Amino acid sequence: MRILVTNDDGIAAPGIRALVEVAREFGEVVVVAPDSPQSAQGHAITISEPIRLHQVEVIPGVETYECTGTPVDCVKLAKHVVLKDQQIDLCLSGINHGSNASINIIYSGTMSAAMEASIEGIPSIGFSLLDYSWDADFEPAKTVVRQVIRKVLEHGINGCNLLNVNIPKIPEAEIKGIRICRQAEANWKEDFMEAKDPRGQKYYWLTGEFVKSDVAPDTDLWALDNGYVSVVPSGHDLTVHQAIAGLKKLENNF
Amino acid sequence: MRILVTNDDGIAAPGIRALVEVAREFGEVVVVAPDSPQSAQGHAITISEPIRLHQVEVIPGVETYECTGTPVDCVKLAKHVVLKDQQIDLCLSGINHGSNASINIIYSGTMSAAMEASIEGIPSIGFSLLDYSWDADFEPAKTVVRQVIRKVLEHGINGCNLLNVNIPKIPEAEIKGIRICRQAEANWKEDFMEAKDPRGQKYYWLTGEFVKSDVAPDTDLWALDNGYVSVVPSGHDLTVHQAIAGLKKLENNF
Repeated sequence: MRILVTNDDGIAAPGIRALVEVAREFGEVVVVAPDSPQSAQGHAITISEPIRLHQVEVIPGVETYECTGTPVDCVKLAKHVVLKDQQIDLCLSGINHGSNASINIIYSGTMSAAMEASIEGIPSIGFSLLDYSWDADFEPAKTVVRQVIRKVLEHGINGCNLLNVNIPKIPEAEIKGIRICRQAEANWKEDFMEAKDPRGQKYYWLTGEFVKSDVAPDTDLWALDNGYVSVVPSGHDLTVHQAIAGLKKLENNF
Repeated sequence: MRILVTNDDGIAAPGIRALVEVAREFGEVVVVAPDSPQSAQGHAITISEPIRLHQVEVIPGVETYECTGTPVDCVKLAKHVVLKDQQIDLCLSGINHGSNASINIIYSGTMSAAMEASIEGIPSIGFSLLDYSWDADFEPAKTVVRQVIRKVLEHGINGCNLLNVNIPKIPEAEIKGIRICRQAEANWKEDFMEAKDPRGQKYYWLTGEFVKSDVAPDTDLWALDNGYVSVVPSGHDLTVHQAIAGLKKLENNF
């Protein structure tokens, strides 16, 4: 089995090493990841400038490449350049340093990379640990990753090609289990820090607080708050199908 | 009525001028747009560096700002810094130079900006013309924009806060009307141009061809191919709800 591993925190992040360690137990691993942190890059791709790709010896014994592009670029480069359109059986993205539950899936480079692979027909799983620290303890997360991959290989993820897996920041013994959930509604209550640079020019820096407005028991936020690993089957169809009929009144003929 | 206008092609693009010209017929317009083209930036936000924001005199008589950030950053800056959390009644994004139908909504900065506003509770419409040229003729598109805004103000877009409007590249007299659609399945068949820079270092440049795999009569691609303006009610819930029940077998207790 050929497994592509990527992330958005960059090739040097501890989270991707933890993911590679587990992935190697299941098959041949190829890593293509950004050469620097690319958090919150969403589904950005690089179309207006060239991308550099270099093979590096960062993870011993694993074929590894870094590139100057976004997480989604990494998946495209992996498929078309590094693997020359050979089959990829599974794409794993992460382990992200920080939550990608709820609305965060929209902003996340980690989840966008996994989604890009899923659009290409590759079963994909994004893993995130609810700990933004670079020194986060990934040992409990590794156990979760191993269990999720085992179960996916055993049962398949038919009807869905992409899983958004978030792991609570609690000791392994306190993790209650895995829950299949829907994405909770939420938003970021944001503001901008306003300051002046050394030349006296004003700048703004995004700051914000995550606001949970929906913690029903079938949501990922509820699962994570209650000691469960959340797994949300996810896709790329943004159509609000239930709104179509009601909007037919907007139709007209010119 | 206060209308926020943004785009991803940048403040100097002819498409945003066309949109502002129509928007002014409906209310007070504030423009916050990127200072350079930001196509395919998806839902990227700038979190690791400062953003600059400047008031500019680009569109006579309209309060206009350019910023160094992404299209989504523009919406956040507009809401929190420029308008200091005053009410925004409508957000219009575009008119994009090129299609954002089907899967392109995922990559589009134009649609991500509109989606960001919709997440904040602002009714939002993204407009795109199927003409990538900088010199595209936006006159037929302006008629479409006017009609869509009128109909939205008349009927509302209840049950959905975001419309993805794409306009075929045909003379105004040949536009048959407006169709409410679902997002068609499709993908990009991609490759990378490989070349060497002046210093002999290899680089890659993304290239690709859009492959339509789904042109059923209820899709946006069908509407556009048949002379209609496509309107897709869109959202930010990526959950594949119909897959949840079948995946319950992945649940376990640790």
